[in-house]
Amino acid sequence: MATGKGQLPKLHPVTGFKLGISSAGIKTAGRKDLVVMEIAEGSTVAGIFTQNAFCAAPVTIAKAHLASTTPKYLMINTGNANAGTGEQGLRDALHSCEALAAITAVKKDQILPFSTGVIGELMPMDRLLKGLPVAAAALSHEGWADAAEAILTTDTRAKGASLQYGKSRKITITGITKGSGMIKPNMATMLGYVATDAAVDAELLHRALRLANEKSFNRITVDSDTSTNDAVILVATGTSGIIINEESFDQFVAKLKTVFIDLAQAIIRDGEGASKFVSVVVEGAVDTDEALAVAYTIAESPLVKTALGASDPNWGRILAAIGRAGLTHLDVNAVQLHLNSVLIAENGARAASYTERAGQAAMQPEDIEIRVSLNRGHAAETVWTTDLTYDYVRINAEYRT
Amino acid sequence: MATGKGQLPKLHPVTGFKLGISSAGIKTAGRKDLVVMEIAEGSTVAGIFTQNAFCAAPVTIAKAHLASTTPKYLMINTGNANAGTGEQGLRDALHSCEALAAITAVKKDQILPFSTGVIGELMPMDRLLKGLPVAAAALSHEGWADAAEAILTTDTRAKGASLQYGKSRKITITGITKGSGMIKPNMATMLGYVATDAAVDAELLHRALRLANEKSFNRITVDSDTSTNDAVILVATGTSGIIINEESFDQFVAKLKTVFIDLAQAIIRDGEGASKFVSVVVEGAVDTDEALAVAYTIAESPLVKTALGASDPNWGRILAAIGRAGLTHLDVNAVQLHLNSVLIAENGARAASYTERAGQAAMQPEDIEIRVSLNRGHAAETVWTTDLTYDYVRINAEYRT
Repeated sequence: MATGKGQLPKLHPVTGFKLGISSAGIKTAGRKDLVVMEIAEGSTVAGIFTQNAFCAAPVTIAKAHLASTTPKYLMINTGNANAGTGEQGLRDALHSCEALAAITAVKKDQILPFSTGVIGELMPMDRLLKGLPVAAAALSHEGWADAAEAILTTDTRAKGASLQYGKSRKITITGITKGSGMIKPNMATMLGYVATDAAVDAELLHRALRLANEKSFNRITVDSDTSTNDAVILVATGTSGIIINEESFDQFVAKLKTVFIDLAQAIIRDGEGASKFVSVVVEGAVDTDEALAVAYTIAESPLVKTALGASDPNWGRILAAIGRAGLTHLDVNAVQLHLNSVLIAENGARAASYTERAGQAAMQPEDIEIRVSLNRGHAAETVWTTDLTYDYVRINAEYRT
Repeated sequence: MATGKGQLPKLHPVTGFKLGISSAGIKTAGRKDLVVMEIAEGSTVAGIFTQNAFCAAPVTIAKAHLASTTPKYLMINTGNANAGTGEQGLRDALHSCEALAAITAVKKDQILPFSTGVIGELMPMDRLLKGLPVAAAALSHEGWADAAEAILTTDTRAKGASLQYGKSRKITITGITKGSGMIKPNMATMLGYVATDAAVDAELLHRALRLANEKSFNRITVDSDTSTNDAVILVATGTSGIIINEESFDQFVAKLKTVFIDLAQAIIRDGEGASKFVSVVVEGAVDTDEALAVAYTIAESPLVKTALGASDPNWGRILAAIGRAGLTHLDVNAVQLHLNSVLIAENGARAASYTERAGQAAMQPEDIEIRVSLNRGHAAETVWTTDLTYDYVRINAEYRT
């Protein structure tokens, strides 16, 4: 299942950033499963990686390479995560960098490797190595849509977002992503690649990536399971000739956020077994931490999620989740709870104006907003999540059968 | 579903502690749903209550009464949690104390009220008040088994534990409990009542309760959702004439833990949709907090739980859970993972000795032990949990339909 529209939008090419795809047979024969991305000379690159201590071998290598030099190529395969593969996994990831470096005449540490797919199996290196020259030969500014397909695992649809802004001269921002659980059935998981033709120095680019990521990929949860392979990469080629400085930075970040939020929401709309797209809005919190604590406790509660799947306005479960979020001195009588526009609970009990009919009606749409007003401060945060359905259990229980 | 044996063991009476039951029609007509427990003069009483800020009205009242005096009666109804009921809920809980106080000729603050059942509905006070004299008239030392039935909500079986120890003169410890999700479908949830005929002063009794509770009810999770109504009460009547002092305290606590762990495990064995009883053992941790962080991250991971339900030795998901548990400077190569007696993973990868056949075989029994050796310290903790099955989703999605 999935929610909302599934069509990939028009993805504007970004000059200075090319993508090439091949079918290497790593995932299944004939399926696009290997991507090479080329970054033009003079670009800047920023990256954010999983915090999971059991991070995959390519994550370790990519982090080290990004720290040492400006990358020229990104290399992504689906079908095998190269995670839980120990020393051999590290050797394989390095070996694949060496192979692409030889083809493209760059140094091996100018290549960032990424993998997604089954955990705990060694990479089929022969297939990967055969596929690399094919992908490198296919490099094109027009490769975004094919690449969006080629990085998927058990996602049910390709995910991308793109925009242009500015008056006479325009800046383009285009990105693709994959993922539909924090970890897929034995799979790992969320990858994002975004490029812009703005000229952004390395420090500003990194700051922009942190700001956009914080309000997008860091605000989604399907099942609270952080993957071993998560990575988001932002490339600025500078080919538009428009320089982002402190003055134009805020607008750039706002546009970047738009693309990032589109991508992050696309992951939730394709969440495993999802029949609802749920926005959990917490407002009136003392600070961001408090707002996020309440939002995530609701968004990750199995009882809230099963009720959402049943279109059941089960406000008692939401209140119980708020109550266990660890807030100090919470005045429960000050808390108000809305489902979409319907006031469900206040004064520690069901709202006097509430009717079961209104509650049921509020739960019918595919898109649901749970709005919690704590009424004790001015911080607000939004987290996006899915419901918990039979299909989630089926997908994750039956994957290996 | 449920795992293990479902038969209630022999519950030894505890002199000085009587239980009376009635069918008040609060839950369903004809079902035992109201319990009164009488505590003899000279007893001591200790209690632990939910940390949920949205705690139910009876919890608020019971905490206040226990703080002000030594209780003479406990009063428990199922069918209605009196939670999310605001000011009216508090008035109803107090009113029921006054009613039982009038019947038994004690003060209203000598009564502790407890409720479990649907959240957000006002208590049907007329039925409760009619049932109280019937339950009070039925008080008997032999009432344990009936009371174990009368406190259930959607539990599939009554839960009790009992033991006697000592040579010529024996101490008896008997308890009952209910709960099969942290919150049941719209229900709330875990209650426990344990009585002993040992003589234990109030300070020691409270300490014993904390120690026993910490290693039992505080070590279980079905779905990570803490209820609004959780409470555990320990009563020491002293009628055996055996005084627990500092010297005999450790043995008493050890015996108390045995009863508490039996009760806590009975809840997990009756967990919503449970087809597995899972012990998550984490050893070699730096401290208790670290051991518990890893154990709960595994025990609450939807991906680990769905794999357990499918009898799938999906060690990649367990490693990923360990990796996101927030341990500082975790050396992933030092971590060893066993499923029952089978070594599954070490050195950051699948163990060389591992075979899929051995892994599959290890996952077949109803009782599964996941053992994580962090090999960086000497702390160890065990948490008990269930798997995540279709039935969990069904029970929690379809309750109101």
